[in-house]
Amino acid sequence: MSPDFSKGVVPAVVQNAETGKVLMVAYMDEESWKKTRETGQAWFHSRERGLWEKGATSGNTMEVLEVRLDCDLDTVLLRVKPAGPACHTGAESCFFNSAD
Amino acid sequence: MSPDFSKGVVPAVVQNAETGKVLMVAYMDEESWKKTRETGQAWFHSRERGLWEKGATSGNTMEVLEVRLDCDLDTVLLRVKPAGPACHTGAESCFFNSAD
Repeated sequence: MSPDFSKGVVPAVVQNAETGKVLMVAYMDEESWKKTRETGQAWFHSRERGLWEKGATSGNTMEVLEVRLDCDLDTVLLRVKPAGPACHTGAESCFFNSAD
Repeated sequence: MSPDFSKGVVPAVVQNAETGKVLMVAYMDEESWKKTRETGQAWFHSRERGLWEKGATSGNTMEVLEVRLDCDLDTVLLRVKPAGPACHTGAESCFFNSAD
């Protein structure tokens, strides 16, 4: 089963499979989806960088343990084992800001 | 602290605060963000429906216990206490499809 890429990229929620912590959200196109499925590592697409592998420069790669799709097939959930912090700031999760 | 709505809507990941389960992803504009903050319930924006409250018709509302923002302020994480299933199919989570 694959996402519906007919409207372009789809968001991918990345969750630590062990702790349940939500780590980041990035985007996938068909190419990054295929790379993720082939390699078992998290690959994404961005307008700035095109195809990129999470952690390719930082070393903080993510091993993908489980891939789930939502009811509309337009959102991906990656359950991962991260090799290090998910955020480019060095934080474990990108969601370090409280709105309160 | 508020999301950056300068590029339009932002995705909102909805997570069960108690179990850690990722329930759904929907989108927020400034109006739905403000309604969520004012009411403590989850409100979203869609092209089809405009402003909508999660559960307004189904009864499966979501009490928002915590609101977090990512490093770029362009993604929201809502940690909620759901009154019922998150998915319109009746499933607890929209992510009931395995890609495998």
